[in-house]
Amino acid sequence: MSSNYHWLYRGTTEIFPSQPSNNPDENLEARLSNIDRPLRVKLGIDPTGTDIHLGHSIPVRKLRAFQDAGHTAVLIIGDFTAQIGDPTGKSEVRKQLTAAEVEANAQTYLEQLRPIIDFDTPGRLEIRYNSEWLKDLDLTNILELLATMTVGQMLAKEGFAERYEKDQPIYLHEFMYPLMQGYDSVAVEADVELGGTDQKFNIAVGRDLQRYFKKRPQFGLLTPILIGTDGVQKMSKSLNNYVGLKEEALSMYSKLEKVPDDQIKTYFELLTNLPLDNLPENPRECQKLLALEVTSHYHGKEAAKQAQQSALSLISGQAKEAQAVPEYSLAEIEFPVKLFYLLNVSDLCASSGEGRRQIKNGAVRLDGKKMTDVNAEFTSKEELAGKTLQVGKKKFIRLTAD
Amino acid sequence: MSSNYHWLYRGTTEIFPSQPSNNPDENLEARLSNIDRPLRVKLGIDPTGTDIHLGHSIPVRKLRAFQDAGHTAVLIIGDFTAQIGDPTGKSEVRKQLTAAEVEANAQTYLEQLRPIIDFDTPGRLEIRYNSEWLKDLDLTNILELLATMTVGQMLAKEGFAERYEKDQPIYLHEFMYPLMQGYDSVAVEADVELGGTDQKFNIAVGRDLQRYFKKRPQFGLLTPILIGTDGVQKMSKSLNNYVGLKEEALSMYSKLEKVPDDQIKTYFELLTNLPLDNLPENPRECQKLLALEVTSHYHGKEAAKQAQQSALSLISGQAKEAQAVPEYSLAEIEFPVKLFYLLNVSDLCASSGEGRRQIKNGAVRLDGKKMTDVNAEFTSKEELAGKTLQVGKKKFIRLTAD
Repeated sequence: MSSNYHWLYRGTTEIFPSQPSNNPDENLEARLSNIDRPLRVKLGIDPTGTDIHLGHSIPVRKLRAFQDAGHTAVLIIGDFTAQIGDPTGKSEVRKQLTAAEVEANAQTYLEQLRPIIDFDTPGRLEIRYNSEWLKDLDLTNILELLATMTVGQMLAKEGFAERYEKDQPIYLHEFMYPLMQGYDSVAVEADVELGGTDQKFNIAVGRDLQRYFKKRPQFGLLTPILIGTDGVQKMSKSLNNYVGLKEEALSMYSKLEKVPDDQIKTYFELLTNLPLDNLPENPRECQKLLALEVTSHYHGKEAAKQAQQSALSLISGQAKEAQAVPEYSLAEIEFPVKLFYLLNVSDLCASSGEGRRQIKNGAVRLDGKKMTDVNAEFTSKEELAGKTLQVGKKKFIRLTAD
Repeated sequence: MSSNYHWLYRGTTEIFPSQPSNNPDENLEARLSNIDRPLRVKLGIDPTGTDIHLGHSIPVRKLRAFQDAGHTAVLIIGDFTAQIGDPTGKSEVRKQLTAAEVEANAQTYLEQLRPIIDFDTPGRLEIRYNSEWLKDLDLTNILELLATMTVGQMLAKEGFAERYEKDQPIYLHEFMYPLMQGYDSVAVEADVELGGTDQKFNIAVGRDLQRYFKKRPQFGLLTPILIGTDGVQKMSKSLNNYVGLKEEALSMYSKLEKVPDDQIKTYFELLTNLPLDNLPENPRECQKLLALEVTSHYHGKEAAKQAQQSALSLISGQAKEAQAVPEYSLAEIEFPVKLFYLLNVSDLCASSGEGRRQIKNGAVRLDGKKMTDVNAEFTSKEELAGKTLQVGKKKFIRLTAD
């Protein structure tokens, strides 16, 4: 057994069948070592959207690792389903696309993958459109595919089970999608299929169909779903917690240097090739290194360094701007004074009522410290003089004694 | 509204949408009256078997009634599915047939329907093979069909619901069959579909698909499932309670003249055109009339009368034979005597144990009266002398006093 398959396991949630296996046919390291015959490593791409973010990049990065180990990446463009859209017409996500739209999306998609995938080394990349084989399936073939699974097995799929329990409609054609994805594996003779952990069921269906069609069943390799820059929910465009692969270097850098501390190691693991045991101890340095490293990957080292510089001067710029904050004199104020009253008379809020609401909403800060007590009160000018009072991100005043 | 649609309702379990309808588009009598445009009346035929029995003839007879009213019978030969068989290979019923086998079955089937259907009047019969349209469906079409229904709707189908409840596997391709049958209605533009009550779901799917494809939805007309000659279970070849359309006149006649009294009116209603308010009062005459009428239908009046004659002489032959029943003397028997002992010593049974078993099984009769008490006992010779003791249908003895 070859020694160094670190790249295979880095950031990998699961490989199935589980490794190492005593069955040489099911031992992935053994199969990978037999480099006489490069493995065919499948990754499916859905060309319905065009913007890819770092979350999408994770299985693609794993695909690149397979390429670097001498294997063949087989990128499947799911043009067939994209051209059908949602036959019920109910889904806004799956709207029907023309062949030209699908092709344009696919090209945009591939362009974004260019920094990750090796497009150039001969034999390392195969791009296939699944309409190639799916358009030729007839009713006989499709009945045969359907007959490989039972309703119970299909309803066990994550997502279906919950919806069935809740009496939410599951349209019958939805049962075809895992079978179609599985049939892609048959058609391209995949040895390994990559995907996020949400792809486990579909990849397993691919294994079953390959067995049914007397082909060697593929391995499944699952990668984690990336948590977004908010540190809470999965990265997604609609949640606005994403970093797009097409983003400008400065934007990418700025988002990444704010990745929360508890996610930073995961980001390093999944989005860089840096060793994890040698990261800076200072969290701020850690964020900067991550941002620099990932930005370098998509924009080159120079651009990334420039982005870092710009981000720094932007911050000091903001600091300078802060010095230009309008002043408000406390000379006329009678103490003790309520915070909400101060917000009103200083014109930060249009009324005391609005002042109370902004405090409740957590929008009010004194020298950066959030003030959440609606009845907060100050007894003397000295407590406030020289401090910055702020509502939201844009309204500031500096309080002065006279 | 035309007055005489007696033929439409005779022996009809249900018409849907329910009649009479105030919506002229959904009023079947109104549609039938508009004879400018004969209605297209669909009946599907499954060419996997070849022998048809009277149970199968019921919707075919209704089809004939539509023909006689000037409408077009559209017989659909389900050659497509027959040639696929059961893709799981698990069903012995749905074995895969070659095109030649299907064609041979279809011809045999049609030959048997010749006495029922009007094959000759121009415009009254259209025979279609559903491979004509099903073979051209591609994955896009099939996803569209599947998307018209939800898993919940399909699992509501009789048969599926029970199996799902009991955790018996339902293979996904089984969900396609109602859709395929429904799509047949779209393809032939059926106005009415006939079927047994077990076809309600499939016919309703046809209505839905026609609506989906912007065609006028068909009416469903359901006929009862015929009870077999045993008077208990539905007529079926495997239960041997059937009368085949290909049976010889004598065999057909003999089975029909034994139809149990409680079924006889239903048989008249479903299998003849005789008025039901004028049947003989004597049950035996009723049976003879039914047997004569139905046999005439398939073999002609002459052959039916001959069959009746032969059946009569067969019975009197059996009667004579009955006089030649072997005698058994009770002279040596000590009373009281158990029935099972008598069965043994008289050689009707090989042992007292077998005697008990035969009594339990209901096979033992004394002068035609079934004896079911294992401990039945007779106290005197006089109780038994002159009577016939019988085990099953073939073993008889006449008991004598000396």
